[in-house]
Amino acid sequence: MRAIILSIGDELVLGQTVDTNSAWLSQQLAAVGCDTVAHFTVADDQQAIESAIKHAASRCDVLLVNGGLGPTADDLTRQAVAAVIEQPLELNPQWLAKMEDSFRSRGRPMPEANKIQAMIPRGARMIWNHNGTAAGIHATHRSSADHVCQIFVMPGVPKEMKLMFERDIAGQVSAEEAGDTGPVILSRTLHTFGLGESVVAQMLGGLMDRKRNPSVGTTVSAGIVSLRLNARFIGRAAAGRELDQTTDLCRQALGDLIYGQDEQTLASVVGNLLKEKGLTLATAESCTAGLLAKLLTDIGGSSQYFQRGWITYSNEAKTQMLDVPAELLEAQGAVSEVIVKAMADSARRKSQAAFALAISGIAGPAGGTAQKPVGSVCIGLASLEKVSARSFVFPGDREMIRDRAAKMALALLRFELLGILAPY
Amino acid sequence: MRAIILSIGDELVLGQTVDTNSAWLSQQLAAVGCDTVAHFTVADDQQAIESAIKHAASRCDVLLVNGGLGPTADDLTRQAVAAVIEQPLELNPQWLAKMEDSFRSRGRPMPEANKIQAMIPRGARMIWNHNGTAAGIHATHRSSADHVCQIFVMPGVPKEMKLMFERDIAGQVSAEEAGDTGPVILSRTLHTFGLGESVVAQMLGGLMDRKRNPSVGTTVSAGIVSLRLNARFIGRAAAGRELDQTTDLCRQALGDLIYGQDEQTLASVVGNLLKEKGLTLATAESCTAGLLAKLLTDIGGSSQYFQRGWITYSNEAKTQMLDVPAELLEAQGAVSEVIVKAMADSARRKSQAAFALAISGIAGPAGGTAQKPVGSVCIGLASLEKVSARSFVFPGDREMIRDRAAKMALALLRFELLGILAPY
Repeated sequence: MRAIILSIGDELVLGQTVDTNSAWLSQQLAAVGCDTVAHFTVADDQQAIESAIKHAASRCDVLLVNGGLGPTADDLTRQAVAAVIEQPLELNPQWLAKMEDSFRSRGRPMPEANKIQAMIPRGARMIWNHNGTAAGIHATHRSSADHVCQIFVMPGVPKEMKLMFERDIAGQVSAEEAGDTGPVILSRTLHTFGLGESVVAQMLGGLMDRKRNPSVGTTVSAGIVSLRLNARFIGRAAAGRELDQTTDLCRQALGDLIYGQDEQTLASVVGNLLKEKGLTLATAESCTAGLLAKLLTDIGGSSQYFQRGWITYSNEAKTQMLDVPAELLEAQGAVSEVIVKAMADSARRKSQAAFALAISGIAGPAGGTAQKPVGSVCIGLASLEKVSARSFVFPGDREMIRDRAAKMALALLRFELLGILAPY
Repeated sequence: MRAIILSIGDELVLGQTVDTNSAWLSQQLAAVGCDTVAHFTVADDQQAIESAIKHAASRCDVLLVNGGLGPTADDLTRQAVAAVIEQPLELNPQWLAKMEDSFRSRGRPMPEANKIQAMIPRGARMIWNHNGTAAGIHATHRSSADHVCQIFVMPGVPKEMKLMFERDIAGQVSAEEAGDTGPVILSRTLHTFGLGESVVAQMLGGLMDRKRNPSVGTTVSAGIVSLRLNARFIGRAAAGRELDQTTDLCRQALGDLIYGQDEQTLASVVGNLLKEKGLTLATAESCTAGLLAKLLTDIGGSSQYFQRGWITYSNEAKTQMLDVPAELLEAQGAVSEVIVKAMADSARRKSQAAFALAISGIAGPAGGTAQKPVGSVCIGLASLEKVSARSFVFPGDREMIRDRAAKMALALLRFELLGILAPY
């Protein structure tokens, strides 16, 4: 099956928003053996949308449209679809009732303008939106006697679009379910943290050969060096088997440097280790100021292993909240191994947690010195048995430095929980 | 002038790379008065590239192509351009010499494969690449007797593409420099938080008329409803003047609901207000668990107004760290206005800050009840004069609920600092 993805929005053609939906949808389509042949993007202009839908629908079996389903005057996708399939828009009473309910439950009347979001072209199917007020549309377009295209229209809001695709559309565009025998692409991503991309690539050696199938490539995002494995074989079973074998080879090459795969994060992996062992963690943060605790609690159920943290951004706060001696701060400076050890030790004792992580650093842009440049970060780790600390200098701007500091704290705790030495 | 951007690459249609080039190019085009009407993306397939070039070239005056100029077998853009303009590829001796020089200076022989990067269709102009080995191409395509399209082909590597565009192409597509008296587009974004998109649209009324110039459109991202103003006029001065006037009209319609524009965030605006007044803020967070403090400290220099925070994720932590009476927690539940008032009051007194914000809520996915469903959040605000609290039910998943809760806390403090009642 051939697919085209059409994204709609002034903000996209003006370059004010980067289109990430098309890449996500392409990945999902590849995973079900559906071949994306093009991405199109046009403005919130009904003529342009109609013309793009017609052009695309005649060239593919599945057209995934996203954007332009909002309640305002510049949202014109449903009107364009109705015009292309030459059907009037009709109010869908089921979706209207759902919208009214949802406004009612939040104690607000539904604005009249939202009514348009329950309008569906006659003969088309309404697709349930579990994350928002815009219903999706599934319509069929016959561009010639022997060509039919299935058109799926989703909201542009990534969260709404993704859930709608996963729950309703993925199953309907699966090549195998359609009896198609072309190759299936299955993908998996393995994540590492702490070593650079070229070091990881060197460790992988021949696995990264361009002609290999499954292929192994590296990408870097926010300090995470990930391996992308793509297996392209006839049949899901063969692709899955090959993917597993290549995964094993990557794990042999990189060992415990691989902390997880696909949706797993350092925080979710550390959380699971803590949960398995029935242990708890407290945090004491200076330069990251809540980011580490935020990452830990991104995960539902994190209260099992995380209950409290201190944000001690100023020296005074370190002294008053965590009893770090003012003389020590004066003598050593807040960004020192002695201080993060004192912070971690105090946080662990006060919280009675099994572990405490402490972070102090210079996130910039100001505050750097010749001895301690911007990017200098000390991380302390206290357990029942010992208190240790490590020093780093992270590259990049304020956001990068804070991000790397919080991730490194999690990575160090992970190695501690695994009982092995950190490889950096 | 109307422009179309065509990006080429398997990694793009497979969704393994997000296309950021198109957004960047659109912004550059808008700034020189060139109107981007569409983005297209196709795979490294010569047939597909030829067909996309033909389709696009007949619909625009400027076609910016990027990608597919590398030295390997899957780089086919130059072949496709040559085929579309019906000219053979010819070796450009100037670029060949440049490439050979550059390899020599790095002590390597030029691989034979790179020779293709000096091939240019007959009659086309070679564009210098200051950051890489792929020469660019400027070709002219006549799709009908009265329509000519200028085609510019650039490498896909962002660094090479950007420099090539800035040094060679920007001047040639500038509406003003071309003596074209076509319009310039200037843009501005105004941000609001707390009311839904349709309510904001209702308040804007006729300003959102599709035919208005400057146009006003709304977009939503992570709970922020933004107004995107696009002014399309002859000459930068006129566009700027009109943009200012429409900005004033939007501010008249929405008043203090508009908290900032362009790069400003709720946290940066609140931070500036605190700084101006020489006041400080402390935080006490339960369900957001550090997110509010993290947002506040995203900004360099935030230590001027933020020094400490408490993360009291468990009830025990609320009692031990902030002296919230255990009986009160038992009687009222942790998600209640009484409790967030107690948290805020205690945090403010302990920190001696001018303000303290406290957040407690049910972020889910578990923990909801009929009385307090997932999404229930209470926000407390303590000042020297008073302690108040508000209750909300935010829609969405865990991430959304935590995000909205932290932003609402900032929004409430902003109105307090402005001395006006929150409009919600």
